Amino acid sequence: MTTPATSPATLPGLMQPAPLQIIDILRFAATAHGSVEVVSRLIDEPIARSTYAEEFRRAGQAAGALVRLGARSGDRIASLAWNTHRHFELFYAVTGLGAVLNTVNPRLFDEQIVFILNHAEPDILLFDKTFLPLVERLAPQMKTVTKFVMLCDRTVHEVGAVGALCYEDLLEAEHGDLTWPVVDENAGAFLCYTSGTTGDPKGVLYSHRAVVLHAMASGLSSAFGFTAFDVVMPCSSLFHATAWGLPFAAPINGCKLVLPCERMDGASLQELILSEGVTFSGGVPTIWTMYLEHLERTGQAPGQLKRLVIGGSAVPRAMAEKFKKTHGVQVLQIWGMTETAPLGVIATPTPALAALGEEAIDEAIWTRQGRLQFGIELRVVDDQGNDVPRDGESSGALLVRGPWTIRRYFRAPADAVNAEGWFDTGDIATLDQFGFMRITDRKKDVIKSGGEWISSIDLENIAVAYPGVKIAAVVGIPHPKWEERPLLVLETHPGAEVDAASVLAHMAEHIAKWQLPDQVVFDAVPLTATGKIDKKTLRRAYADRYS
Amino acid sequence: MTTPATSPATLPGLMQPAPLQIIDILRFAATAHGSVEVVSRLIDEPIARSTYAEEFRRAGQAAGALVRLGARSGDRIASLAWNTHRHFELFYAVTGLGAVLNTVNPRLFDEQIVFILNHAEPDILLFDKTFLPLVERLAPQMKTVTKFVMLCDRTVHEVGAVGALCYEDLLEAEHGDLTWPVVDENAGAFLCYTSGTTGDPKGVLYSHRAVVLHAMASGLSSAFGFTAFDVVMPCSSLFHATAWGLPFAAPINGCKLVLPCERMDGASLQELILSEGVTFSGGVPTIWTMYLEHLERTGQAPGQLKRLVIGGSAVPRAMAEKFKKTHGVQVLQIWGMTETAPLGVIATPTPALAALGEEAIDEAIWTRQGRLQFGIELRVVDDQGNDVPRDGESSGALLVRGPWTIRRYFRAPADAVNAEGWFDTGDIATLDQFGFMRITDRKKDVIKSGGEWISSIDLENIAVAYPGVKIAAVVGIPHPKWEERPLLVLETHPGAEVDAASVLAHMAEHIAKWQLPDQVVFDAVPLTATGKIDKKTLRRAYADRYS
Repeated sequence: MTTPATSPATLPGLMQPAPLQIIDILRFAATAHGSVEVVSRLIDEPIARSTYAEEFRRAGQAAGALVRLGARSGDRIASLAWNTHRHFELFYAVTGLGAVLNTVNPRLFDEQIVFILNHAEPDILLFDKTFLPLVERLAPQMKTVTKFVMLCDRTVHEVGAVGALCYEDLLEAEHGDLTWPVVDENAGAFLCYTSGTTGDPKGVLYSHRAVVLHAMASGLSSAFGFTAFDVVMPCSSLFHATAWGLPFAAPINGCKLVLPCERMDGASLQELILSEGVTFSGGVPTIWTMYLEHLERTGQAPGQLKRLVIGGSAVPRAMAEKFKKTHGVQVLQIWGMTETAPLGVIATPTPALAALGEEAIDEAIWTRQGRLQFGIELRVVDDQGNDVPRDGESSGALLVRGPWTIRRYFRAPADAVNAEGWFDTGDIATLDQFGFMRITDRKKDVIKSGGEWISSIDLENIAVAYPGVKIAAVVGIPHPKWEERPLLVLETHPGAEVDAASVLAHMAEHIAKWQLPDQVVFDAVPLTATGKIDKKTLRRAYADRYS
Repeated sequence: MTTPATSPATLPGLMQPAPLQIIDILRFAATAHGSVEVVSRLIDEPIARSTYAEEFRRAGQAAGALVRLGARSGDRIASLAWNTHRHFELFYAVTGLGAVLNTVNPRLFDEQIVFILNHAEPDILLFDKTFLPLVERLAPQMKTVTKFVMLCDRTVHEVGAVGALCYEDLLEAEHGDLTWPVVDENAGAFLCYTSGTTGDPKGVLYSHRAVVLHAMASGLSSAFGFTAFDVVMPCSSLFHATAWGLPFAAPINGCKLVLPCERMDGASLQELILSEGVTFSGGVPTIWTMYLEHLERTGQAPGQLKRLVIGGSAVPRAMAEKFKKTHGVQVLQIWGMTETAPLGVIATPTPALAALGEEAIDEAIWTRQGRLQFGIELRVVDDQGNDVPRDGESSGALLVRGPWTIRRYFRAPADAVNAEGWFDTGDIATLDQFGFMRITDRKKDVIKSGGEWISSIDLENIAVAYPGVKIAAVVGIPHPKWEERPLLVLETHPGAEVDAASVLAHMAEHIAKWQLPDQVVFDAVPLTATGKIDKKTLRRAYADRYS
């Protein structure tokens, strides 16, 4: 092997040193697509309509207001807010100042929210009216927050126990013709906490560079494939890894942006989809299950909707099939995590798949999380750290690397990557010859039975397809002989009659006998604050089941 | 105006510091689209077929061979080569080593080629067999080149007077499993010379960062909009601003790549378009005029071809209309220059245009060079440096800025940008309310013939040296095939006997044959008030000369 030495820039290039800055995305949209609309539902206010030109001006006003409140470069500024144009503006206003927007997930437990705010140490907290009771309740425990701003106009404003300022009043006092500072592209921009099932939330501090590169990459046809004719409605939350980067990918591609606030029920989404001509949306499976039910109930069609990117947990195949065959909507899975800003892979078709026919495409993009994307390297390795075969069957630990992947958690004493820069996602996955990746389990949820691994996700996907089953959870329970054995916990639809033997018989048609759960329990399945099955609680509740 | 101070990274982000490296584009294609083909015509050899996986390995072999020849980080390595898979490999092999590929335009004058090589100072020159006579002729004047490599296999190899090595033999000696060095993203990668109308050629030194960002941006739907189903055939030369970045945009999007070598005639292109299923191509107008003529002559259709990006000079509207209405091929104009790597604007449709109807779209994309792209800022300013109105009528100097725009020419003593980082393109342009830019006056005296620039001043300087000539003026006159061809207007000294054939014979000793004026006119040469040749009047007077 011929290995030249590592080469620093012996001869530097002579192009311009323009930094990648988040504010330049909105500046570009304002200049090139200035009349394209941003439409937003609000709490207690009518739908707001603005344009990218107006949003750029409003971001300038918001930045001016924040500076007047004392915000400086490097400061953390917190938000507790839904998907609205005001939250969208703050994505640019705060980062454009060189400050960091700490988007707090309001669905977390009180203790977690308090932990995050005291860890991030913001001086200013901006929140939607919905959260006034939450803010009032937790304010006494917030060690650094001194200024509270309610994201609303004066007609609905409430000062509350925290003396909240009115966002629109603050903006009105500003011209908005700000000269934005030049911000180092490696400066922190967003601080997003990930709430694992164990321990305190951990902060991921996105840089401008990571966000801009992610926005460029996610617009490519291998990912979201946006054109200026797309109308994009993010139904993933802006406080969840910046809504998968959609608030950046939409303006960078000149797409009209529709923001549904907190109203993710089927009827509310359908209203916006029809009235605003939404072509593209994305979110967790639960939302789209509700939306499908709404379409069925009302007999309506999904208007201009063409593509749905669904992630957060595995997409039920039946849902994807229904969307395509009944409504002509293509469902694309996506996998990522807060630590990957979040785009990891997305399931878009390729010619190699197409050569095998339409069914091969559907099979791949419905059963795999997605394919390799430029800008994020993936490896699947065995216990010795060697790459497993790319055969779609061999599984191993999923490692990722790239400019929008985490290096270190906020305030952590050490890097979260190994010596070669790889971040261990904690997921178990396979890679196939088409470059498609499939998550088979979380490392901590995989069931180790007699030296073999059993994928809890595979078993759940099969069980949940059985009529009457609403949620299926599979966990590994300590076993005296096999180390662990699977236990199936079923939550059924109200009124459904489901018996354990039939479910197991159904499962036996799809998996090896030794993978079948030893026991089935009918119970309510506990969920975490982010809507995922709380397996930790289940494992604890049934810890002695097989002993 | 609220103006916070410029902010360095008070709080740096905590994402991975992965540099943007050109080799990662090919590495990605090899990993994610390894079986996608790269097809190449060659000189005196049959069509070569390989894949991105093989090209990545071959790039490793080529890099190994270059290291063995003494190549080091920062070195310039020169090429005189057509659009082939070997030239494509060198784009990655050379830059992957941290060295700089100096792609020399073989169509320049001998003196210009010699100037470029002695200015870039390469030790190694790789060339296609076509150029052996050129290389043998100029080798004695090359001050730094000591190693010559002919890009061919041993069956057609010739050592020549320069003792050329055989490229494929060099590769065969290497494993190709190179551990690529980590290269600083600001390191120089490509050195492309631009031959302006006056003075010596000037070198533009692209960085890795500029090339990778350009590749990401040009894949977006606002630009080339590639999907993995596209089959891309670059008919712009690889030595012209890296063929508009297509050798990077194609693999980053998983597109099959078809390389036509030097054969740009209609029949040869059509053969590849049909046999390889080309969906996307690009090049100068002359090529596509010839291609259209071929289709008409043979009554053939353009197969899967869907889009043609045409630039280098303005697209004749009739050609664009013919492509669309007769063949269903969408012609998109593009504007850029070597100094912009080269993507500046490209004419892709927007909803704002579409709202005015199909004709409005055609009108805009056929008569404008294109619309604003993320990553390259445009300004059109008046003599006082103020932005002119965006009305599509007010014209001014076109300024550009961004991470893939030049800062300084190679070895120049000073930057080529103003205090705010803007580069003056030397073009006069308008901007309209849709964000579309139109060039109204090129650097007004340059003659554009078949996509190549002919310097009027150079020709005049040669002609005026002929005995009996008093004033020589050269202007570009519209030509049905070549867009423009030079016309020489001679004013002789009283009583002098000068004949056209002798003057042209004299000129042919100093310039390439294709640059010779098609016709010579004896006339009084009009002068402006300041004593300069009034070319505007001349162009008007002889406007129909070649029609």
